[in-house]
Amino acid sequence: MGQHLICPLTPQPAHTMTQPIVNLQDHEHAAQAALGDAAWAYFSGGAADEITLRHNVAAWQNLRLSPRVLQDLRGGHTRCNLLGREWPMPLLVAPMAYQRWAHAEGESGMALAAAAQGCGMVLSHQTSTPLHDVAAMVASDAERGPLWFQLYWLADRGALRDLLAQVEAAGFEALVLTVDAPVHGVRDRERRHGMPLPEGVKAVHWPASDPKNKPSTGLCGGLADAAPTWADVQWLIGQTRLPVLLKGITHPQDAVQAVKLGAAGVIVSNHGGRVLDTLPATAELLPRIVQAVRQHHPQALVVVDGGIRRGTDLFKALALGADAALIGRPALYGLAHAGARGAAHVLRLMRDELEATMALTGCAHIQDIGIDRLWSLESF
Amino acid sequence: MGQHLICPLTPQPAHTMTQPIVNLQDHEHAAQAALGDAAWAYFSGGAADEITLRHNVAAWQNLRLSPRVLQDLRGGHTRCNLLGREWPMPLLVAPMAYQRWAHAEGESGMALAAAAQGCGMVLSHQTSTPLHDVAAMVASDAERGPLWFQLYWLADRGALRDLLAQVEAAGFEALVLTVDAPVHGVRDRERRHGMPLPEGVKAVHWPASDPKNKPSTGLCGGLADAAPTWADVQWLIGQTRLPVLLKGITHPQDAVQAVKLGAAGVIVSNHGGRVLDTLPATAELLPRIVQAVRQHHPQALVVVDGGIRRGTDLFKALALGADAALIGRPALYGLAHAGARGAAHVLRLMRDELEATMALTGCAHIQDIGIDRLWSLESF
Amino acid sequence: MGQHLICPLTPQPAHTMTQPIVNLQDHEHAAQAALGDAAWAYFSGGAADEITLRHNVAAWQNLRLSPRVLQDLRGGHTRCNLLGREWPMPLLVAPMAYQRWAHAEGESGMALAAAAQGCGMVLSHQTSTPLHDVAAMVASDAERGPLWFQLYWLADRGALRDLLAQVEAAGFEALVLTVDAPVHGVRDRERRHGMPLPEGVKAVHWPASDPKNKPSTGLCGGLADAAPTWADVQWLIGQTRLPVLLKGITHPQDAVQAVKLGAAGVIVSNHGGRVLDTLPATAELLPRIVQAVRQHHPQALVVVDGGIRRGTDLFKALALGADAALIGRPALYGLAHAGARGAAHVLRLMRDELEATMALTGCAHIQDIGIDRLWSLESF
Amino acid sequence: MGQHLICPLTPQPAHTMTQPIVNLQDHEHAAQAALGDAAWAYFSGGAADEITLRHNVAAWQNLRLSPRVLQDLRGGHTRCNLLGREWPMPLLVAPMAYQRWAHAEGESGMALAAAAQGCGMVLSHQTSTPLHDVAAMVASDAERGPLWFQLYWLADRGALRDLLAQVEAAGFEALVLTVDAPVHGVRDRERRHGMPLPEGVKAVHWPASDPKNKPSTGLCGGLADAAPTWADVQWLIGQTRLPVLLKGITHPQDAVQAVKLGAAGVIVSNHGGRVLDTLPATAELLPRIVQAVRQHHPQALVVVDGGIRRGTDLFKALALGADAALIGRPALYGLAHAGARGAAHVLRLMRDELEATMALTGCAHIQDIGIDRLWSLESF
Repeated sequence: MGQHLICPLTPQPAHTMTQPIVNLQDHEHAAQAALGDAAWAYFSGGAADEITLRHNVAAWQNLRLSPRVLQDLRGGHTRCNLLGREWPMPLLVAPMAYQRWAHAEGESGMALAAAAQGCGMVLSHQTSTPLHDVAAMVASDAERGPLWFQLYWLADRGALRDLLAQVEAAGFEALVLTVDAPVHGVRDRERRHGMPLPEGVKAVHWPASDPKNKPSTGLCGGLADAAPTWADVQWLIGQTRLPVLLKGITHPQDAVQAVKLGAAGVIVSNHGGRVLDTLPATAELLPRIVQAVRQHHPQALVVVDGGIRRGTDLFKALALGADAALIGRPALYGLAHAGARGAAHVLRLMRDELEATMALTGCAHIQDIGIDRLWSLESF
Repeated sequence: MGQHLICPLTPQPAHTMTQPIVNLQDHEHAAQAALGDAAWAYFSGGAADEITLRHNVAAWQNLRLSPRVLQDLRGGHTRCNLLGREWPMPLLVAPMAYQRWAHAEGESGMALAAAAQGCGMVLSHQTSTPLHDVAAMVASDAERGPLWFQLYWLADRGALRDLLAQVEAAGFEALVLTVDAPVHGVRDRERRHGMPLPEGVKAVHWPASDPKNKPSTGLCGGLADAAPTWADVQWLIGQTRLPVLLKGITHPQDAVQAVKLGAAGVIVSNHGGRVLDTLPATAELLPRIVQAVRQHHPQALVVVDGGIRRGTDLFKALALGADAALIGRPALYGLAHAGARGAAHVLRLMRDELEATMALTGCAHIQDIGIDRLWSLESF
Repeated sequence: MGQHLICPLTPQPAHTMTQPIVNLQDHEHAAQAALGDAAWAYFSGGAADEITLRHNVAAWQNLRLSPRVLQDLRGGHTRCNLLGREWPMPLLVAPMAYQRWAHAEGESGMALAAAAQGCGMVLSHQTSTPLHDVAAMVASDAERGPLWFQLYWLADRGALRDLLAQVEAAGFEALVLTVDAPVHGVRDRERRHGMPLPEGVKAVHWPASDPKNKPSTGLCGGLADAAPTWADVQWLIGQTRLPVLLKGITHPQDAVQAVKLGAAGVIVSNHGGRVLDTLPATAELLPRIVQAVRQHHPQALVVVDGGIRRGTDLFKALALGADAALIGRPALYGLAHAGARGAAHVLRLMRDELEATMALTGCAHIQDIGIDRLWSLESF
Repeated sequence: MGQHLICPLTPQPAHTMTQPIVNLQDHEHAAQAALGDAAWAYFSGGAADEITLRHNVAAWQNLRLSPRVLQDLRGGHTRCNLLGREWPMPLLVAPMAYQRWAHAEGESGMALAAAAQGCGMVLSHQTSTPLHDVAAMVASDAERGPLWFQLYWLADRGALRDLLAQVEAAGFEALVLTVDAPVHGVRDRERRHGMPLPEGVKAVHWPASDPKNKPSTGLCGGLADAAPTWADVQWLIGQTRLPVLLKGITHPQDAVQAVKLGAAGVIVSNHGGRVLDTLPATAELLPRIVQAVRQHHPQALVVVDGGIRRGTDLFKALALGADAALIGRPALYGLAHAGARGAAHVLRLMRDELEATMALTGCAHIQDIGIDRLWSLESF
């Protein structure tokens, strides 16, 4: 596992896939054909007018590369080292709920795909597969990327502590606390179709009686009253031996505050454009957060999420200073129409395109990918 | 009245509406289906090539939000306090003529909808319902927003004084003098269809023999000769005990001049793109007017109008310094296809989206919504 | 003649026109339906990819207006005074060849339309109607705008002198020398269709054996060798008592040079996007030329041509400092589908829209239209 | 040969072409109709989302011209002098593989077309016609442009030396080493269709066992390990008496480095958008490379490649400082649907349009085409 085929990229043969699949957009089209309308609306939809959803993709595309030619590329590779672990490629599958709604293989299939391609995976708090099963599926793979667990804040701290104990015991390597969704987003497409989860698909680790559902008189019917604060973050960091990353950071001062409180790093994210529309694209947000964090905490991680659809996009994220990136919907699309094999093909395409981008810009190793590989009118 | 349902937003059930309505654009489509061609052209149309009409909407969309996470949101709400009155939400229905052409419930239905959702309403001088009836309809609602009356200048000052007396007696709380339409706009779509007002629909408070119709040799056949001047504004302010706002201000110096002459405030507006095409979008005009007015007259009101279609748009207007905003066509569209209930749903969507935006940007109260919640390359 | 109807603008009744015509774009559509493919390609086509053709229109649209409210508009009008003559409106019909190909009324009909609406007209050197007939048609109209004659350079100076004598004798008031077309433009659409001029339509004042057709070894088969130079311009100015304007100026230094040599003014033009593609829009070119000319020769005329389709466009041209503007294709389109009456309606729409724009921006007279009526981020 | 017809441009008569062909886009459409799907995908396709492919074209279009009028154009021409040779026009056909796949006349037909129009040609290392045959075809044409040979690096230096000897012996005048494709590009359209080369079409000078195909563990399956370095370039320059140009340079420092090592010049190119997507357009890259090279090595050549589709584009390349330009796909398209005659028509259109652009901007000779002929807000 973790090894890869010879370049150049070859189209996916049409076993389960009925057309040649050569890029992530093909996977998206195949997933739309495979999923029902409601599931498609749920997984592909964004908040409101989906401006941020589209902008996330366009912002990476709009960055221009600046190659250097005739560099020595011998022995080049994409390996990286984060949180004390070396792994084949700085890419993780983003946390996404209800993956069994997309495909029967669900989160287990996704974990297998990530491990097979040497990528990491962040399991969603709203996983439809027990966390132990997911962890056990890939425990024996030495070359896989890291396994992290994503958490929404729960007002019931006892329940939180119980969950943390399970997560630690199962071998997860980090906690990712999502901080950008204290209330639900306004996803129009999803609201048109509802969320008719199939029989047997549910969020297995989600509290039966969600304290968030207690109505009150505050914002959003009181939902906002149950939202976590910086004090809650500090409490959480004190409760676990795992490194904690905050996901959904868009402001440099929030990033610095997180690290000051002991977070191992931040994930720059606008929740894939699913929660609040007209947020900036993550490619726009990333540079200032990198700058702010690096200035005071050079060891803290900065991971970025949103809109990455090409190896060039991932390369650009690294060039802007990210330590790694998350990829969400495309991996889900691969899973949706072809199970673990489809998700693995998505990640494999990302790997092959990243390698090609590195070779074509004159970067033999990940650490060679610097801001000078991005072109701008001011850069010379 | 004035209370609201639990978040998350739920689609409008399909009683009178035949499809799930989840946003203001859905209301627009439903209204187009419900209205005849001429009424649709009249209510939806803009001046000339409709550049400003489109630009009004796009300019709010193009502003980017800058949330702060993990703020304390307990007890948050949207209440505001303007001209000495506290009310549930800083949004008013804009003045629009002939609402009975859109729906039999007309201005009365609109006033009921505004009151039910805790919004204010500006009744048009060209109302097709007597002003007393509109005021009486909502007089008993303690939680409703303010009721203002919009006025075009009349060359016949006696008629003006009579109207002012009626407006004051009926309990209106402010006068809004429209100053940006001394002559008719060039609305091509309206001119193609004419204005075939249905039997029984007319502007009930409009002078029978409009002095504006006297042709002369000046601009626009003499219409411009009857246009009001600053001296007329000063006279008007002296004639009434009600606060006077000037609507249709786009230049900072005009805003300052208005307040200097005793106006209680200004409404930044390009008349919804209906009068003169290629005016800047109101989102572009607002910041300089806020700056100019605040510098000398911190107590004066600055209200903004035009293109607001989402809770994020309203949030951005407040972040740029507006005290409140008007919403026009969308409320009319709700009224057009489902009467007061449709208009109320539009305002309710705005409320729910505003609350979600506040929670998601870390603003518990209206006064927390500052310019620092808008993102720009220069803002860090 | 020269008087105009009462505002608001009323749609053109459908006598010869089969649909309500309310703006210049409607006239364009009507013309396309009325003309054959080749004539449509000839009159509407531009050079190469038609980038400048489209850009001319968009550049006026992209300028934003900045009105002032509550100004005294009494007695306002659009009258102007150029080259010692007062006339009703600073607009002239641009020189266009072969107008009898568009409609049997041809240049005579166009001249009648211009005179009826108080506009000027520039008769093309390639007129398909004798210049004397055109001049005689409108000689008795006291309120008409000026009649100018457009000239291409002829290598045969004797022929030029003969033509000048006829032009002067017929009562033309100025000469317009076109300097931006030493060789033919690359008009792809025209080249696809050829120029099948109908029986009896020809350029009546064009030399039978055009000296330009002598092939040689220079650029463009030697055509460029016959192109005029500054020395030729100086000679021409010395040959006539009429004021001479140079048309096709895009560079400030060329404008200054023209005026230094004794030209009465310049016409900023890119030949309606018909000759060389990817020239800047005239709205972009105008300000620097105004600035350069005004600095040294405040009495010289600066006229602008290209892309004006609305009264707001004409207003913006005046605000940028033009003394007057030309309008080409739209007048031709009016002529094409409804003869003089159609062309007059086009000019009348321009007048009404200009008046409305003046009233709505607070300008009672042409000289009130200054750069401060254009909005920009830097203008406050 | 080398002479050209009288302006204005006349549409190509419909002998083999079934519609009037008046510009390069028409040739593209005709080629698409003539080629099979796989050949069309191969020749027209670009890397990934084809952003750079489109951007190359748009960037030339977006530059604006700044003509000067009334210049003396007598005796003007397009002749140029590069690497010690004078020829009719500073344009060369870019190296393109497998031209016999496009048309049976293949590289011989292309060479004939280039010679007939006074253009140069760069023969691809992956030519499907023996280099001797191509060179022999045009050896007797005194007025033809230069014949260059394009080379990919071969790990087998002996094979390289053999090839160099053949190239020199056949009379090629320069070597062009492509340095921007150490690994294959990610061309999605090509990957969907494969490369079903017809019987008898192959790269006749390509090594039978390509050392690049040895898989290893480095980037792109080891392909990157075989990529050339600056040391290899230095070796190559020492092996040949021909001037060497490096093709695929996008960074000013790489350009300077190339010339310092003895290269005769550089070709600014992003490989026609075929190798790495989201590279800047060559029109954006060119100015800084010209500036860097000219500062230290005023005699070195700077040639530009990519997106040139009009005479105005070629003119702009020269105005930005290029000594000459390459044209690729359009010449191939002409060849594809009409053989040498089609390719010649493409080049002839470029010549005629360049001449028209020169005449219309006031440039009698190539050396008159300077940066002052491009318009910018800052240029006055």
